[in-house]
Amino acid sequence: MKKIAVILSGSGVFDGSEIYESVLTFLRLEHNGVAYQCFAPNVEQMHVINHLTGEVAEGEGRNVLVEAARLARGEIKDLAEANPAEFDALIIPGGFGAAKNLSDFAVKGADCTVNPQLVTFARAIHDAGKPVGLVCIAPAMTPKLLGTGIRCTIGSDEGVAGAINSMGGIHENCPVDQIVVDTDNRVVTTPAYMLAGSISEAASGINRLVDEVIKMV
Amino acid sequence: MKKIAVILSGSGVFDGSEIYESVLTFLRLEHNGVAYQCFAPNVEQMHVINHLTGEVAEGEGRNVLVEAARLARGEIKDLAEANPAEFDALIIPGGFGAAKNLSDFAVKGADCTVNPQLVTFARAIHDAGKPVGLVCIAPAMTPKLLGTGIRCTIGSDEGVAGAINSMGGIHENCPVDQIVVDTDNRVVTTPAYMLAGSISEAASGINRLVDEVIKMV
Repeated sequence: MKKIAVILSGSGVFDGSEIYESVLTFLRLEHNGVAYQCFAPNVEQMHVINHLTGEVAEGEGRNVLVEAARLARGEIKDLAEANPAEFDALIIPGGFGAAKNLSDFAVKGADCTVNPQLVTFARAIHDAGKPVGLVCIAPAMTPKLLGTGIRCTIGSDEGVAGAINSMGGIHENCPVDQIVVDTDNRVVTTPAYMLAGSISEAASGINRLVDEVIKMV
Repeated sequence: MKKIAVILSGSGVFDGSEIYESVLTFLRLEHNGVAYQCFAPNVEQMHVINHLTGEVAEGEGRNVLVEAARLARGEIKDLAEANPAEFDALIIPGGFGAAKNLSDFAVKGADCTVNPQLVTFARAIHDAGKPVGLVCIAPAMTPKLLGTGIRCTIGSDEGVAGAINSMGGIHENCPVDQIVVDTDNRVVTTPAYMLAGSISEAASGINRLVDEVIKMV
């Protein structure tokens, strides 16, 4: 049975993994009969956002792995324990957590760095020729995560697209229900909630992405 | 367009709304072209559970409405503002939040009480002959929420079933992919994660429940 690693970054669109994108990913993997294991880094969130008001919850701190465990019903492991040899592919859902906790793209843009445990794991997957799927804002990490010269999409946001290009990536505009596939580099990306106005719209692209990643395994 | 109120109880299976059940409900409502509005009570959670360890996070407090906002991408309102005249039906996903935050069933069993704002809202929906759908452990509230003599299911847990019966409800065992429909009382229930071993299993019952609730509108 194929087995895919899913990397989470918390639980909630504004400071963690986008919940709908993550659940849609799990659902589609199950639908395809593919096993998956969730991981998250055991680090503090950049901050906590009150999702009712959209404001920073001053003085509050949360751990990425502990909060991501909510999205996985507790079935999650520390990213430090992830063995790339055990997995056929890697998928990272979006949400600001990808740009705040897995990397600091939300703060530093093209000058961002990516969590070193994640880089080590993702490069091992990538270097072994296994496919990588990145959703929503997560593709903004592509050049720093996997290397330069890789085609990807975050939809059509000019600021983010420009940052990807200036890091050495190759951004392509893409509608919400489609994917960008870099066949040579085995990287699949889709805009999801960078463009989606509903769960169904997010699903239209995510389902394609998951199917394509599985097909590449 | 039909419009359904969805009541959340936080965000996370062990101290709030079950995330997968909630997202599956939203997805199926959208699939059917039905609009929905999320609500949650503006009260403190009974406690916070660390979903990685399963233990109570001592000294930590979270607000049900603020955490439920994560599950709704911020598109949620205080239950106090909910006007039953604006909605054609009511659905409550499961998760321990239904038994800890919407009621105290998790602590008091058959001696439980239900959040009075929720009772007022749900009775208005129910008394107007509009359907009510309850998922997972949420049907344990049925007798106190809607009245006695109503058929419902939480799957096959003898303890919870016995408590429902002793409160004046009528529990019926039900497999994960099925629903119990009390046609006279217009109440639909399904076990979901009281029995489910996967998201797909939970979806099999939740999709039927959502479809049946919509059919009854």
